[in-house]
Amino acid sequence: MDIAIIGLGGVSRAFLSLVEEKNDDISKTGLNLNIKYVLNSTGGIYNKNGIDLNDFNRFLKDTNHIKLSSYKRNYTQNANFDLILKNKDVDLVVELTQTNKVDGEPGLSHITRALENGISVVTANKGPIMLAYKELKSLANRNGLSLGIGCTTGGALPSINAGMIDMAGAHINKIEGILNGTSNYILKEIEEKGIAFSEALKMAQNMGIAEKDPSLDVNGWDTAIKLLILSNVLFDSDRRLDDISVQGITEITPEELIMARENNRKIRLVGKAIRKKDDVELSVELVSIDIDNPLYSADGKNKAVRYSSDTLGELTVIGGASGLVPAAASVLRDIIIINNGYKFN
Amino acid sequence: MDIAIIGLGGVSRAFLSLVEEKNDDISKTGLNLNIKYVLNSTGGIYNKNGIDLNDFNRFLKDTNHIKLSSYKRNYTQNANFDLILKNKDVDLVVELTQTNKVDGEPGLSHITRALENGISVVTANKGPIMLAYKELKSLANRNGLSLGIGCTTGGALPSINAGMIDMAGAHINKIEGILNGTSNYILKEIEEKGIAFSEALKMAQNMGIAEKDPSLDVNGWDTAIKLLILSNVLFDSDRRLDDISVQGITEITPEELIMARENNRKIRLVGKAIRKKDDVELSVELVSIDIDNPLYSADGKNKAVRYSSDTLGELTVIGGASGLVPAAASVLRDIIIINNGYKFN
Repeated sequence: MDIAIIGLGGVSRAFLSLVEEKNDDISKTGLNLNIKYVLNSTGGIYNKNGIDLNDFNRFLKDTNHIKLSSYKRNYTQNANFDLILKNKDVDLVVELTQTNKVDGEPGLSHITRALENGISVVTANKGPIMLAYKELKSLANRNGLSLGIGCTTGGALPSINAGMIDMAGAHINKIEGILNGTSNYILKEIEEKGIAFSEALKMAQNMGIAEKDPSLDVNGWDTAIKLLILSNVLFDSDRRLDDISVQGITEITPEELIMARENNRKIRLVGKAIRKKDDVELSVELVSIDIDNPLYSADGKNKAVRYSSDTLGELTVIGGASGLVPAAASVLRDIIIINNGYKFN
Repeated sequence: MDIAIIGLGGVSRAFLSLVEEKNDDISKTGLNLNIKYVLNSTGGIYNKNGIDLNDFNRFLKDTNHIKLSSYKRNYTQNANFDLILKNKDVDLVVELTQTNKVDGEPGLSHITRALENGISVVTANKGPIMLAYKELKSLANRNGLSLGIGCTTGGALPSINAGMIDMAGAHINKIEGILNGTSNYILKEIEEKGIAFSEALKMAQNMGIAEKDPSLDVNGWDTAIKLLILSNVLFDSDRRLDDISVQGITEITPEELIMARENNRKIRLVGKAIRKKDDVELSVELVSIDIDNPLYSADGKNKAVRYSSDTLGELTVIGGASGLVPAAASVLRDIIIINNGYKFN
């Protein structure tokens, strides 16, 4: 499979390493990955026979600020998206530019143009999927293409894929998820150590688990975005972030968490989507989870989604190691699934 | 998709009802199911335009002993497997004859002959998969066909499918599963009610949860068979039932279960497969499960599988409603996945 990679952030770099290191495992699945293009905002490289990953990964390791124009090899320099569309020599675009929640750009244009031009897409970019999945899906369908979005709703955790594939044919009526690893980790730390939120946050930041600006995670918006994607995709609805009542974890006290624990319960941040007749009820809030609820064991940096359905009953998936390698592995997973013939959407 | 159904037991009848009732949901996935053949050991019917499910399901409801020759309609009577191969007018055979763990027949012949003749297969039949998956898989691969086995390792629980699809590209190094709903239910009853195994078994039998001859379930052999399929398929190995050390649940005392519970643990029957360099270690035994283990919450009739891998970390799937409808829904799920283009195996 010939592919183009757009974006050169952490997930993208982890993906390029993964493809090099796991070449044997990947081949065993029947997939022969050939990366012809790598583009980022500073430029792009193209080689019709494929980029030498060993050499390119070494270049990336030695470089903090990735200016592609400084990678001088016998490749076409200054490759851009137009060149991909002109050459028409890739089967798949892997869109890994940064999430933009306002208008989805530049990812939205990349995905749209690829699909318009007969190229399937795998993306980890939440922006375009949150804002325009319905349109992108029908564009992909019209052109007989696949749009893999497995990495947009929890990285390694097969959340949206489980909803699509493992629940195929069942009518899902409820989605509940612990979807944000960072806030889940912080809640566990407060509960175990009896410390205040601010202190637990600082520790998580020092460990690189929480970002410098943690607001998206701890205020519930990351959970809300993932919930929105899950419900829009699986309920075939078209809701917006504004439709969700969102609570964060900043007000929680250690006392509340410890008391819950003493009663065999845990307080966790849960995104919930309930399908009503012609409506979807969406919420993100702190929920007291009983010990018998499968979500109970999604602890630490783990995430989990629980689906309730008619004919297939309940399904809970728990896991999803955090980090760049698992995220990259989930991009790779979508590519393998597509290579095995599956038409997402 | 034109299909033939072989076998007319409980799952098969539930499947026929499901296809009739869920026609709308199924169409939405892009699948147009047309059942042309139904065969069982008493005979077979065939209609090139498809069997009228509404009428046929009504016939099945009024009949306990399903003698297909008594279903007199304007269809070809006495249809058999040879006719399917001669007509070559189906895309898929759904093999639902009874599991035979000794030589896999007649299922093994049905699956083999279908695959030899260019017809994909979905089956719930553990026998042929346990005994000959490797051969069947390579036969399917040679002929560009799919062999869906999602229903052989836990019905509605997407256990083998999760291992194949949701872990695609990762190297699974350990599989742990609570794979038998009946023994899991009995253990929970003993634990909660403080009753002896024999009493809990009798109650489960009265409720239709345990069979009259429960030995396969409570002696651990059903777990062993499912574990064997999971590990042979996912580790690409070729082990036999004899290679597994198997323990059952018949010797457990209420005291052991209650004491474990007081220590925030549960004793459950766990099948475990660990991948070593050139070997696989297989066991089925009672295991004390810690509260932090995601398997802890697989209670009652629920089942669960936990995968450990390199790049995708851990994944636990919990659920899998028991019964004929969920089992039928899992057969339907495999058909939908195949219809979406996915090549199993």
